Amino acid sequence: MKPFIDLRSDTVTKPTPAMLEAMFQAPVGDDVYGEDPMVNELQAYGASLFGMEAGLFCPSGTMTNQIAIKLHTQPLTEVICERTSHIYLYEVGGIAFNSAASVHLVNGERGKITPQQVEAGINPDNIHYPITRLVSLENTCNKGGGSYYTIEEIAAISEVCKLNNLALHMDGARVFNALVASGDDAKAYGRYFDTISVCLSKGLGAPVGSLLLGTKPLIEQAKRVRKVLGGGWRQAGYLAAAGLYALQNNISRLQEDHDRAAQLGTALGQACYVEDVMPVETNIVIFRLAPQVKDSDFLKYLEGFGILASAFGPQQIRLVTHLDLTEDMVQTIIQAIANYKA
Amino acid sequence: MKPFIDLRSDTVTKPTPAMLEAMFQAPVGDDVYGEDPMVNELQAYGASLFGMEAGLFCPSGTMTNQIAIKLHTQPLTEVICERTSHIYLYEVGGIAFNSAASVHLVNGERGKITPQQVEAGINPDNIHYPITRLVSLENTCNKGGGSYYTIEEIAAISEVCKLNNLALHMDGARVFNALVASGDDAKAYGRYFDTISVCLSKGLGAPVGSLLLGTKPLIEQAKRVRKVLGGGWRQAGYLAAAGLYALQNNISRLQEDHDRAAQLGTALGQACYVEDVMPVETNIVIFRLAPQVKDSDFLKYLEGFGILASAFGPQQIRLVTHLDLTEDMVQTIIQAIANYKA
Amino acid sequence: MKPFIDLRSDTVTKPTPAMLEAMFQAPVGDDVYGEDPMVNELQAYGASLFGMEAGLFCPSGTMTNQIAIKLHTQPLTEVICERTSHIYLYEVGGIAFNSAASVHLVNGERGKITPQQVEAGINPDNIHYPITRLVSLENTCNKGGGSYYTIEEIAAISEVCKLNNLALHMDGARVFNALVASGDDAKAYGRYFDTISVCLSKGLGAPVGSLLLGTKPLIEQAKRVRKVLGGGWRQAGYLAAAGLYALQNNISRLQEDHDRAAQLGTALGQACYVEDVMPVETNIVIFRLAPQVKDSDFLKYLEGFGILASAFGPQQIRLVTHLDLTEDMVQTIIQAIANYKA
Amino acid sequence: MKPFIDLRSDTVTKPTPAMLEAMFQAPVGDDVYGEDPMVNELQAYGASLFGMEAGLFCPSGTMTNQIAIKLHTQPLTEVICERTSHIYLYEVGGIAFNSAASVHLVNGERGKITPQQVEAGINPDNIHYPITRLVSLENTCNKGGGSYYTIEEIAAISEVCKLNNLALHMDGARVFNALVASGDDAKAYGRYFDTISVCLSKGLGAPVGSLLLGTKPLIEQAKRVRKVLGGGWRQAGYLAAAGLYALQNNISRLQEDHDRAAQLGTALGQACYVEDVMPVETNIVIFRLAPQVKDSDFLKYLEGFGILASAFGPQQIRLVTHLDLTEDMVQTIIQAIANYKA
Repeated sequence: MKPFIDLRSDTVTKPTPAMLEAMFQAPVGDDVYGEDPMVNELQAYGASLFGMEAGLFCPSGTMTNQIAIKLHTQPLTEVICERTSHIYLYEVGGIAFNSAASVHLVNGERGKITPQQVEAGINPDNIHYPITRLVSLENTCNKGGGSYYTIEEIAAISEVCKLNNLALHMDGARVFNALVASGDDAKAYGRYFDTISVCLSKGLGAPVGSLLLGTKPLIEQAKRVRKVLGGGWRQAGYLAAAGLYALQNNISRLQEDHDRAAQLGTALGQACYVEDVMPVETNIVIFRLAPQVKDSDFLKYLEGFGILASAFGPQQIRLVTHLDLTEDMVQTIIQAIANYKA
Repeated sequence: MKPFIDLRSDTVTKPTPAMLEAMFQAPVGDDVYGEDPMVNELQAYGASLFGMEAGLFCPSGTMTNQIAIKLHTQPLTEVICERTSHIYLYEVGGIAFNSAASVHLVNGERGKITPQQVEAGINPDNIHYPITRLVSLENTCNKGGGSYYTIEEIAAISEVCKLNNLALHMDGARVFNALVASGDDAKAYGRYFDTISVCLSKGLGAPVGSLLLGTKPLIEQAKRVRKVLGGGWRQAGYLAAAGLYALQNNISRLQEDHDRAAQLGTALGQACYVEDVMPVETNIVIFRLAPQVKDSDFLKYLEGFGILASAFGPQQIRLVTHLDLTEDMVQTIIQAIANYKA
Repeated sequence: MKPFIDLRSDTVTKPTPAMLEAMFQAPVGDDVYGEDPMVNELQAYGASLFGMEAGLFCPSGTMTNQIAIKLHTQPLTEVICERTSHIYLYEVGGIAFNSAASVHLVNGERGKITPQQVEAGINPDNIHYPITRLVSLENTCNKGGGSYYTIEEIAAISEVCKLNNLALHMDGARVFNALVASGDDAKAYGRYFDTISVCLSKGLGAPVGSLLLGTKPLIEQAKRVRKVLGGGWRQAGYLAAAGLYALQNNISRLQEDHDRAAQLGTALGQACYVEDVMPVETNIVIFRLAPQVKDSDFLKYLEGFGILASAFGPQQIRLVTHLDLTEDMVQTIIQAIANYKA
Repeated sequence: MKPFIDLRSDTVTKPTPAMLEAMFQAPVGDDVYGEDPMVNELQAYGASLFGMEAGLFCPSGTMTNQIAIKLHTQPLTEVICERTSHIYLYEVGGIAFNSAASVHLVNGERGKITPQQVEAGINPDNIHYPITRLVSLENTCNKGGGSYYTIEEIAAISEVCKLNNLALHMDGARVFNALVASGDDAKAYGRYFDTISVCLSKGLGAPVGSLLLGTKPLIEQAKRVRKVLGGGWRQAGYLAAAGLYALQNNISRLQEDHDRAAQLGTALGQACYVEDVMPVETNIVIFRLAPQVKDSDFLKYLEGFGILASAFGPQQIRLVTHLDLTEDMVQTIIQAIANYKA
């Protein structure tokens, strides 16, 4: 039987009864013909949230990211992103596979890059180089332990992009965590990004799906790319209804996830067998075990309490908080952390 | 308001109450971790139906086809298919986009190709040519007016493939229509095909999804391809439950769709303004209007009765029957056909 | 030792002493830096011949064709060409490999396509289809037995392209044969084509190379594509000198090749074991052997006289005349044809 | 008029009279048919030098590198290389363009990577990652200031590759400089590398071309890849003759280039306006100007003496010695360096 305290990711959440109810009552239609009313409503709602013109509902954040990259690049062009970003590290080399584009990797600070790094990464006008076309930011940064960009940081990068004719994309896998933590206004994002990928199935708790947001012409083009990738689905309204419910009900509660992550971070910081805990800014806790502790041993120890976590590099472990956790579970975890004997 | 007799495609169907019930009672999990029980059950059930080892549930038939093509080919190889086949004509040039493979187009008979044509299409061993690697059959053939392959025809093509070291894939967008019409056994297909794409959202009435079937090692590889295309979804069990319900309940009733398509074909055959009706073998009726009738006029005429149909090439129109039609609707259509004044 | 009457192709020719002399007196430089004077002169001369702005010297006609296709297309777009055209049939599926573009194949008449066929091949504005972007003509048509387009035919196709926002490329592997046969002015071509690929190593007798011609901005882009394909070479001026010599000395003499091809065609037309000879319009003779004659036997028979020819499909044989043939050789061939006993 | 002391690269060299003589007398044939005797001889000679089975003569080192990468990878696989390596930095993103492969960049030491870095860069067996397939070493390392691998270092990396089923390629743009400097035996390389790209037009002084070396089956496959890239050329024997002459005559003299590079390095090390000179190991000298000196000013100063050099990053300048330099020129350069007033 499955362990019941699942901290491996916030993707594991299951719909609440109210979300299920919304799904169950959704009117649907054939979305390939653009006729699914729930899908259309979700797309419009999501776009308006971020001050953008249009949206496209897709089966995954990988798909919305990959479509965005394809929209902004062509073969013989290049994408600037941080070296631990999801689009580079965890999307099976999709930048090369789907877009035949090259990648310029920046050594960021906990996943975040600076305007100076963007500028330095732009290729000179010379036929030996691909043409730099796109900058992609991840917000929050998964490998950065849930670090986030402030709107001022985004504005500064956007300025470099505009001066150099580069598109700017946001992989918003956990963008609402960033917004809740920073207090920034989602609508302001629309001024700086050409496209935003907004995941509905992580902290927000919808079962499936991601929204790609952009201008109307870009989203029209995006439909063709979605089609060739096999993402043109039919009566997707059941899933769209869950996504809409999530956007309308599950954003502000993310603060609770952040608070709990902070509690876990504190507990880990006090544990002698933990060498380092990344600053906890949102709902992700990444820590490094002391050399004498084998990471597989520690994971097995947690499993004894029904707690699942992810190995995240040598000696590194990641915990992610989310809406399926209860206060009791959090206490169980803290207890388990405190009691471990290295 | 939407017209209520929708013959544009069998993709427009909506779940019945019983299917909806199955969906919302489905236990779910994170399918990227392989933990969605309904997805796993659907994949196993679908594979066993066709005598194959394993299955992978994907958002669309385009995705299962495109994954199959990627599995069997590499850049510098070639696919043999009929010139009107869906994988070539309606998947946005995905053979080139996703697989960088070349295509050898065969002029088939109502969408069907012969073993001789396959053999003649194999490239010689010469560096000027891509290496022929894959044959893909569509069953039933959409552009062939729903024509289907018998198991004997499939066996003969499979033999040529085996002799020449070619993989054989079936685009089974409407494979159950073929099986119901031919009386062939689905399990026999598993002996001849390396991969089968089985659509759940056409005649079977599920809202979303397609199954890719193959050997266990191939399906393992398929997961990576699905991931890069963005088809790795999370709690897809709601949709899988609908698909499973469809496989278990909606196959044999396809005969009704075929009977109704035949009735429509007969009515059209008697209409003086119709020049030609393709033989009606399953649930598709394709006919050609006489030159004096403008196809857009005739489509508008039908719309006056709440009937939607598809333009399908110059002067050609396609009607598709499916499980959302009632007997009354069928009579309305026949009446409308009979009463048209060219 | 190699047979001495080589009719397999006009690619087999070797430089004459005068051409060799031109090669070895050539001043050279590093062409990657744009500093090879002979290359620059050849490019300018070739462009001016066809009334175009700029040229790029490349190692092969396949490279100039493939660069042109890449310049005019992007992934998710489509190329219209004849089904037997070199770019589709003999360039290893390069349209898919290098450009990830799809291909719409037209059944032409001896390799030639019509404005009507181009128009009918343009995809509708619908996300299921790639976007039609490029039409490519081969002139002369190799598989059409050396058939050629007149300037009027080209103008008519160009008009359809301009109306529909399509680029028009010419694969001029044997464009000078077309010009000599039609009497058309090379400069007129520049008005109709966006790019022209001009082979220097076929009938013209240069050892290596092809010129891509187009506007200055296109040729600037072409340099980047050439670079990524590995076609950026260094002191290529030795080969450029041969190409320039060929352009300046070897065009008008192509008439002799045409006359000799016509003679061979006549001889074959009188042979009882030959079923069909394609009309001989330039320097290619394609004929079909009667069923009782095995093509490999006939090729072996010719080899007995030191004559090499190419098998060109079942029962089909191709002969190509060129500047390395002497009158004596032509008589030997005619004799051999006349004396064959089926 | 062109400056006469060209240190921008060793690609700028022009054939000596003896090399030209060898070219002029070369017997040639159609290399697409495999019939050019000089090409065949060059390929066999080059392969035997490195203890490998077969070779393929191509127009550039970019082409031989890109073919090798294509041979060893497929889409959804990954290449490990140093972050400043030519295949990643200067081949227009060809890894993505030609092979749709992803790239894992290692921070090496002056361009060189270690077995430990290779091992750490291998992706785990997980569908989120491309499959690691190839390691590519550059020898000497251009961006590392001409640093080279010893045979022991290569053997150690090769062992990691063999254990992990990775192919190992060498970009031997300046492999003979490495061999002369290390004293290693070229034949030993053949034991460790699956493919080697050997440039003939850099230090060796041939006008055009590069050899790809590997096993016979690999080289057979390489011909198809060369063809699709447009690298199938015809009477390439003139260039092959120059390459063969270079291999037979111009290797040992590279020591002179190294000695002169060392002299220049010493002169620069004594200049107060130079902040840093990379260790000079072969024929490349990279140095950094002090902040108060504008690199463009210094380059202009050198041009005043007819000396050309390359800007090589902010404040960085590269000089490359080669066989077209005379002792007088070297003295002129040293003088110019000594006399510069910052």
